[in-house]
Amino acid sequence: MNLSEQQLSSEAIFDGNILRVSVDTVRLPDGQRATREVVRHPGAVAVLAVTEQDEAVLVEQYRYPCARTLLEIPAGKLDVAGEEPAACALRELAEETPYTAQSVELLYRFYTSAGFSDEKMYLFLAKDIYENSTLHADSDEFLHVVKLPRAHVQAALQSGQIIDAKTIIALQYWLAHP
Amino acid sequence: MNLSEQQLSSEAIFDGNILRVSVDTVRLPDGQRATREVVRHPGAVAVLAVTEQDEAVLVEQYRYPCARTLLEIPAGKLDVAGEEPAACALRELAEETPYTAQSVELLYRFYTSAGFSDEKMYLFLAKDIYENSTLHADSDEFLHVVKLPRAHVQAALQSGQIIDAKTIIALQYWLAHP
Repeated sequence: MNLSEQQLSSEAIFDGNILRVSVDTVRLPDGQRATREVVRHPGAVAVLAVTEQDEAVLVEQYRYPCARTLLEIPAGKLDVAGEEPAACALRELAEETPYTAQSVELLYRFYTSAGFSDEKMYLFLAKDIYENSTLHADSDEFLHVVKLPRAHVQAALQSGQIIDAKTIIALQYWLAHP
Repeated sequence: MNLSEQQLSSEAIFDGNILRVSVDTVRLPDGQRATREVVRHPGAVAVLAVTEQDEAVLVEQYRYPCARTLLEIPAGKLDVAGEEPAACALRELAEETPYTAQSVELLYRFYTSAGFSDEKMYLFLAKDIYENSTLHADSDEFLHVVKLPRAHVQAALQSGQIIDAKTIIALQYWLAHP
């Protein structure tokens, strides 16, 4: 059976700085119609960076939609102008933390919320990181850098200290690939 | 430093069947203002179910926002009326697959896209599953059930066959907890 849904019409709801929202009418595989509320997003990157002391470099950051701070790996949106994910990952690591990487290796690509959004996340491993003296944060980003030793990762995952999807993926990967 | 952002105003953009979208103005920790595009979501559940033959029960499903089919663990939105996550997980497993679980155990709670949405996902492990003869799918869900043997999981993750965040979390968990 063909599972695909065919777009019949699309009503534009919102065209923001980051998000575009539409309500689309689709034809289902059985010929019936349904509506889909869709959030278009430019995509994002995230970076797992591990220090020589075997600590993951995390950032504590207030997330307004969640109304709380979260502990996350460094991450950021892809520039709408078509920035390369690897370049974006190197930039975000350097902007958000005192660390710079020589290069990054793609670990996973994934959709974060496939039910309602096309946001695609590229998760990288930082290679050959070194500490920088200066930290250049975006003007509207306020964050603390937190280094999480490998020995504490399992407890941080199980206790609910880490409740961000991309960060769970990255830390699980790290535990499985020492 | 206090990292929190204080809401100054909120402009309602969209109040849909599933999503609510607003553009909020916030005060940053340094007193400056910024805007936040926010997507409110009722939350969701997902279920890792493993058969007696050591296969993960997955569903292949067309995801309209991504314009493609994805291979995912069974999942679904929380009822707006305040359904318990565990009950929702049991229901979704039974609706989407030929399997029913006696109970579920919470593995993780996480935000899927904390940068723009409050969607919270509850990931459960299904306990004591058994095969049911009948399959009751939602009227607008079309899917194939796929059983992924444990021995194939690592390759499915590395090859890009699995590109759904919650499913990556569940499968990495399974690999780490045989």
